[in-house]
Amino acid sequence: MAVEIPPLVKPSRLRRRGGLWGECLAEFLGTFVLISFGTGVVAVAVAGLPGSGRTSGPTTFFISAGDWLLITWGWAFAVVFGVYVAGGVSGAHINPAVTLAFAVRRKFPWVKVIPYWISQLVGAFVGAALVYGVYHDAINTFDAAMKGPKTHGHTLASFSIFGTFPAPYFHGGNWGPLVDQIVGTAFLVMLVVALIDIRNTAVQANLGPLLIGFVVAAIGMSFGPNAGYAINPARDFGPRLFTYFAGWGDLALPGSVAGAFSDYWWIPIVGPLVGGVVGVLVYDLFVGDVLHIRAQEGELPEVGRTRPED
Amino acid sequence: MAVEIPPLVKPSRLRRRGGLWGECLAEFLGTFVLISFGTGVVAVAVAGLPGSGRTSGPTTFFISAGDWLLITWGWAFAVVFGVYVAGGVSGAHINPAVTLAFAVRRKFPWVKVIPYWISQLVGAFVGAALVYGVYHDAINTFDAAMKGPKTHGHTLASFSIFGTFPAPYFHGGNWGPLVDQIVGTAFLVMLVVALIDIRNTAVQANLGPLLIGFVVAAIGMSFGPNAGYAINPARDFGPRLFTYFAGWGDLALPGSVAGAFSDYWWIPIVGPLVGGVVGVLVYDLFVGDVLHIRAQEGELPEVGRTRPED
Amino acid sequence: MAVEIPPLVKPSRLRRRGGLWGECLAEFLGTFVLISFGTGVVAVAVAGLPGSGRTSGPTTFFISAGDWLLITWGWAFAVVFGVYVAGGVSGAHINPAVTLAFAVRRKFPWVKVIPYWISQLVGAFVGAALVYGVYHDAINTFDAAMKGPKTHGHTLASFSIFGTFPAPYFHGGNWGPLVDQIVGTAFLVMLVVALIDIRNTAVQANLGPLLIGFVVAAIGMSFGPNAGYAINPARDFGPRLFTYFAGWGDLALPGSVAGAFSDYWWIPIVGPLVGGVVGVLVYDLFVGDVLHIRAQEGELPEVGRTRPED
Amino acid sequence: MAVEIPPLVKPSRLRRRGGLWGECLAEFLGTFVLISFGTGVVAVAVAGLPGSGRTSGPTTFFISAGDWLLITWGWAFAVVFGVYVAGGVSGAHINPAVTLAFAVRRKFPWVKVIPYWISQLVGAFVGAALVYGVYHDAINTFDAAMKGPKTHGHTLASFSIFGTFPAPYFHGGNWGPLVDQIVGTAFLVMLVVALIDIRNTAVQANLGPLLIGFVVAAIGMSFGPNAGYAINPARDFGPRLFTYFAGWGDLALPGSVAGAFSDYWWIPIVGPLVGGVVGVLVYDLFVGDVLHIRAQEGELPEVGRTRPED
Repeated sequence: MAVEIPPLVKPSRLRRRGGLWGECLAEFLGTFVLISFGTGVVAVAVAGLPGSGRTSGPTTFFISAGDWLLITWGWAFAVVFGVYVAGGVSGAHINPAVTLAFAVRRKFPWVKVIPYWISQLVGAFVGAALVYGVYHDAINTFDAAMKGPKTHGHTLASFSIFGTFPAPYFHGGNWGPLVDQIVGTAFLVMLVVALIDIRNTAVQANLGPLLIGFVVAAIGMSFGPNAGYAINPARDFGPRLFTYFAGWGDLALPGSVAGAFSDYWWIPIVGPLVGGVVGVLVYDLFVGDVLHIRAQEGELPEVGRTRPED
Repeated sequence: MAVEIPPLVKPSRLRRRGGLWGECLAEFLGTFVLISFGTGVVAVAVAGLPGSGRTSGPTTFFISAGDWLLITWGWAFAVVFGVYVAGGVSGAHINPAVTLAFAVRRKFPWVKVIPYWISQLVGAFVGAALVYGVYHDAINTFDAAMKGPKTHGHTLASFSIFGTFPAPYFHGGNWGPLVDQIVGTAFLVMLVVALIDIRNTAVQANLGPLLIGFVVAAIGMSFGPNAGYAINPARDFGPRLFTYFAGWGDLALPGSVAGAFSDYWWIPIVGPLVGGVVGVLVYDLFVGDVLHIRAQEGELPEVGRTRPED
Repeated sequence: MAVEIPPLVKPSRLRRRGGLWGECLAEFLGTFVLISFGTGVVAVAVAGLPGSGRTSGPTTFFISAGDWLLITWGWAFAVVFGVYVAGGVSGAHINPAVTLAFAVRRKFPWVKVIPYWISQLVGAFVGAALVYGVYHDAINTFDAAMKGPKTHGHTLASFSIFGTFPAPYFHGGNWGPLVDQIVGTAFLVMLVVALIDIRNTAVQANLGPLLIGFVVAAIGMSFGPNAGYAINPARDFGPRLFTYFAGWGDLALPGSVAGAFSDYWWIPIVGPLVGGVVGVLVYDLFVGDVLHIRAQEGELPEVGRTRPED
Repeated sequence: MAVEIPPLVKPSRLRRRGGLWGECLAEFLGTFVLISFGTGVVAVAVAGLPGSGRTSGPTTFFISAGDWLLITWGWAFAVVFGVYVAGGVSGAHINPAVTLAFAVRRKFPWVKVIPYWISQLVGAFVGAALVYGVYHDAINTFDAAMKGPKTHGHTLASFSIFGTFPAPYFHGGNWGPLVDQIVGTAFLVMLVVALIDIRNTAVQANLGPLLIGFVVAAIGMSFGPNAGYAINPARDFGPRLFTYFAGWGDLALPGSVAGAFSDYWWIPIVGPLVGGVVGVLVYDLFVGDVLHIRAQEGELPEVGRTRPED
């Protein structure tokens, strides 16, 4: 039954989607899927599970290992399916830090960087809006039941569904979380370029997106609690912007009242952008260069990518 | 030792199984496997685990993150093996919403839609009956130990093994759960068509069913608690019908006594049917159309399916 | 560096290993790996985790959803690696019920059935002995700390590391657990023959063993607590025999004192043997026959196996 | 967009990286990734999760099944990505016990053994340093909150992030843990050689590293709590050395004050080295020899490796 599927839109109106515009649509949809599932699973862990002890009003909020497994698996699948849905069109960066690192060391065209970034940010914003729409009642019920400090009726716990912030144990200001974001994103990009490097042990059978999701599971399990493992400027800033407008105010961004984290918003932007570049450089220095030499000597194919358009 | 396996039934009686009738048998078996494992894992979480605190008679019933991981993994594998067992014969829709969406946008023959739907519903009903048979003693022991309101001796907690209902935090009637079902099924079908779209990053090595199961895990983890993520009319209505006859009465369907959820049964039917169509439309609008253009230009093969008969 | 690996044993002494004797060695090693990892993970959940609340001496013993996830993943990987280690030599049945079902409907030679069964049973016995050796101190510390009834100093909880028994909620004697074992093993064999049926959606890239392990995870998650999901006569009877000799006495097998489960030992033998045959018959009736017809008509290859010697 | 990626370093300076030096860089990076993620996940379970009950100062420290699942999945992914990052260059042993076993029975050149060992140990040391850097504040906050005995302000619980030690239930000194390490590493190497043996059911599509990670998950789930499943001399001694210098003192290595485990450090070195060789010998005796005979008879290809340079 191999029949052609006609397009939804009239062919005459479709033409420009074949190029950068189509790639931007794919980046939008991929990042939208990423953030819908990703912030969705935190909504479940925080406010969705029926009768969770946390909804009966404790002032202290804790995360058990079971909660953490749920959150890390949920974000992992969010990445897996964000990459699958967009992979064949745009390469599925769905992360400005990946786009930048690929521009720096994988010949991704610099002219596409800003369009990709915008698509990713808009996708993340809309994904957060969808999750807010679906969990609106759950979040309000949760915030009403919680004791302790609130901003416009919202708690830091419900903000954590959407945005990230550092653990309370950090001393010394933003340096710790900034290093954390650089390290986490360096691992992300280092492992992504390893998994798609056909000169190395690149995953075949189109299972790369699954393994890339597992990379994010690994980073969440091993480096997540420090600062919420944004490791993606769009992942944090898109939902943060949404919550700013949706009522969390200065819990999200600096406003009239100085919030505890009002000066934090730039960390999950700058840290990942720096970290992604560090990751690809470390990979090339320790492994990529060796593979390059072997390829030069004819032992291996050159070029480390399995997906079109990366 | 590659020898031919003869059929169970005499060849003279087998002929008509080669066509639609055989596909209906496969859809029946696939959905039977889906519901047997799916409702089975909820039976384990609710009534099966030995010495669970919940069986000693609390009036409030809660679900921990560990319970939720067990339930979401269990349903994921239920999908995986429901698809594997039937995939080579019928395409393994095992979900009326998938069948409808494939008829609308993937040229699945409209004439097969009703036969598929009936097979799926009967398979779901029989799967629920099997789980009731196997967990009969566990359920009765559980219901007897629980305090609080009961219908013919059964609790809402034991009904939750089989059917779905909205979380208590929903305000505004059925609109919230209806949107939830549309959103969840839209993601399901969007990601299924992405995973099998050979113009995109379609999973190879016959591992598509595994990834489709992971899609359902992701939906459960990120969108499940709102209304039990039926996202499949047969998955909810088959077991609901069974429990109606097996003694849960108006906890399942409107009866002589007005149950709290007696007007809810149509939500997990209408929501998924609408959502599935939305999902495939969104996919084609944002990604499928771009792939269509590239295929037209000879860059890619046309047609997005890897399994026969989808 | 593709160099030939010489055998450990002198070629002159190796000759007979090429045939049935070699297959028996592989079945032994595969079942040994299965039981070592499988009973090992229960040892961890019951007695191994440091400071578990259960080791401080409760009289009631409970299993949380987290424990159950640990146990079901552990047994799943036990199957995965038991199959991988032996697959290329013997087909890795590692389960007498699989061997019987393959003889009945997959032309596995009847003459090999008893040798396979013996190899599997001996492998299971030795695997249990290894786990006892490794966890000897943990088990003794656990049993000493537990309150309640003991047999020769051992508890039912520590017996549960090795052998299976029915949940306390069963009424009506052994019928419930017998049906449970038939159902569980029917699903096991139905799904195994589906996963390796090249006329269907057989898993490729030699990932069948991984998916077969996931089948056992699914059965454990959805049908495990009823009676410990032995679904394999060697898996239960091998460790049971070991514990009988190692001091658990009539907790394992009928002895001088009538134990609560002294008449239970035959259930996880007969149930799986019956259930495995039921599973392959149901598969062939609902799906296999259709694939046979299509193969007859030249649409598909005949014969459903991907591994040698099945 | 298949374009050549130029090396980071000038080609004139790169030449010697093509050989053993490049392999050592890869082993360093692979083991660095292994230890960064592996000790990172224990840092999360012990000190990172916000509001964990354990950080409010109990004197007894416990590990729940949920914690154990988090730790075992985290270490599994640590292995997966340690192998992927280095696999194409060095074969990604990332474990001196694997290197030794491959030298003994897989013709890995003996002359490379010591360089590989050193690279692995240095990578492990640097990985531990990174995790200490990232979790410095979390660890100090945790240690300050814990009651009970401390060494230079550090607890055994925080040492467990980096190094291993035996469970308290062991009687009879170091024999139990030594046997545990031999058994665990024997399973590791036995299963690794099975998974890459192309005469057997070797995993294809470059998914071997994923399954090798699952082997380590299985060993952790089934044999981990006895002594922390180092099963890798570099994994234990590298971080142990780091903690010795970083302030844990004789909790890590014998020093001025006799620590409880000061005589334990050699067990996770000697046990794995012995166990790895045992594992490959058992595999070859029970399975490899049979495959060798079949290969001799032309039924199978000889040589059991899928990765270059093993």
